[in-house]
Amino acid sequence: MIDETIRPRLGIIGGLGPLASADFYFKLTRMTEALRDNEHVPAVVLSVPQLPDRTEAILAGHDGPLAPLQAAVSTLNALGVTFIAMPCNTAHHWYGRLAANSRAEIIHIGDAAVTEIRRSLGHGRIVNLATRGTLVSGFYQNRISAAGFELCLPVGSEFQERIDNAIALVKAGSIADAAIETECALHLARLAGADAALLGCTDLSVVAASLNITKRLIVIDSNTALARACLTRLGFGAQEARGPPTVSRLAGQDRSPWRAGPRASWPRGGR
Amino acid sequence: MIDETIRPRLGIIGGLGPLASADFYFKLTRMTEALRDNEHVPAVVLSVPQLPDRTEAILAGHDGPLAPLQAAVSTLNALGVTFIAMPCNTAHHWYGRLAANSRAEIIHIGDAAVTEIRRSLGHGRIVNLATRGTLVSGFYQNRISAAGFELCLPVGSEFQERIDNAIALVKAGSIADAAIETECALHLARLAGADAALLGCTDLSVVAASLNITKRLIVIDSNTALARACLTRLGFGAQEARGPPTVSRLAGQDRSPWRAGPRASWPRGGR
Repeated sequence: MIDETIRPRLGIIGGLGPLASADFYFKLTRMTEALRDNEHVPAVVLSVPQLPDRTEAILAGHDGPLAPLQAAVSTLNALGVTFIAMPCNTAHHWYGRLAANSRAEIIHIGDAAVTEIRRSLGHGRIVNLATRGTLVSGFYQNRISAAGFELCLPVGSEFQERIDNAIALVKAGSIADAAIETECALHLARLAGADAALLGCTDLSVVAASLNITKRLIVIDSNTALARACLTRLGFGAQEARGPPTVSRLAGQDRSPWRAGPRASWPRGGR
Repeated sequence: MIDETIRPRLGIIGGLGPLASADFYFKLTRMTEALRDNEHVPAVVLSVPQLPDRTEAILAGHDGPLAPLQAAVSTLNALGVTFIAMPCNTAHHWYGRLAANSRAEIIHIGDAAVTEIRRSLGHGRIVNLATRGTLVSGFYQNRISAAGFELCLPVGSEFQERIDNAIALVKAGSIADAAIETECALHLARLAGADAALLGCTDLSVVAASLNITKRLIVIDSNTALARACLTRLGFGAQEARGPPTVSRLAGQDRSPWRAGPRASWPRGGR
């Protein structure tokens, strides 16, 4: 169905969320060792933002997102891709059933993230900043433990509340406020004794370059991890993300869309 | 060929160049008035970086890029899109033949850019930072004149050389050096009496947020213009790009890949 001269090699299921997939596509491109256009990966991003909310489905115990995810996988296979990437951690809850029905290999973001953690440290305590759906799904806990790392979870509800706020703020386009919420969660993680923090939700990858609290905590970005894994599997040279995209904090142009709701104040644990 | 639940409405021909299309996709997403994933445009980016060089083809008088561009248009039509965007100005040399063979409307970047110029000023002198291919193609000169603006072209060869350097540097991933070259070209444009500068090559859109010389010259970005035009035609709310992606200048991580070649020194006209 596609002319061989323009056949993409990598298929990307995007829109989950939209900024997260834009961030992934930017990082994939920026990390490719290339000096000219034609040294880059021929790819296709199929953005399906109308998919039902993944975390809601997992918590409610239904498979609403599976059928449209499967449709996206089928379309990408029809376009002739060799590999598929889903820059959405939560969607990997359905990985097994999607992979079983795909000719193209789906590169698992959890495997990519654990490889990325190993690039940064050999042992220690890892905290995962993820959606409640990803946590319930459990694929990260298994992988991190199996790799010999210890899982670290800050006590109390505030840690996850900050993460939930940050993710919602990214989806609403308020990157600056999302970065503050993420920094609060990272602060709580450090107080809880974490050595490294995994941004195990690609919405949080969007704020990775805007974080100011990374000096005393190793931060691992699941979008960067997935981009590196894709380039490696495709046989392309991968380099460190040279000047990753950041979002400037323009005064008055990046306010929270909510009057009440997510707080952008420092956590109760103190600075 | 595609499940209706995930049918994209906007098709994007990407990879021309790769960072330029990543920048476009990021800006399109960032400019969409949305608070949740499902309020975003269902879209597909078909990245075809292996396409023959557009400027080389135009200068040599052949149509090498036309067949793969037509194949991309056909694929996007088969995926059911309503509109197509090409975030590459030079590729619009073949707009007429592509549009004639597409059910989906191809949104012309030149029309979008002139609309964007009109948002910023009512009359004045416009300088176009474009590839030599786009300049030979001539579609901008016609549109800018027809809209009542005066075209401004700095004398001497340095202006276009700086632009050529900047474009090549973006393609090689050296954003910081590309920004310096672009600033040099903008400086020459200001000396030549320009009121506004059009970044009429989407590779230059990548450096738009990194420019430091924009205070005394209105800078119009063709990627932002095309993103706004797409959102408007699709019936989506468009807002100013809130905190557009910028590329941080990390010391030692963004050096020029060439030992000789493009200069990153200030132009002969003096600062």
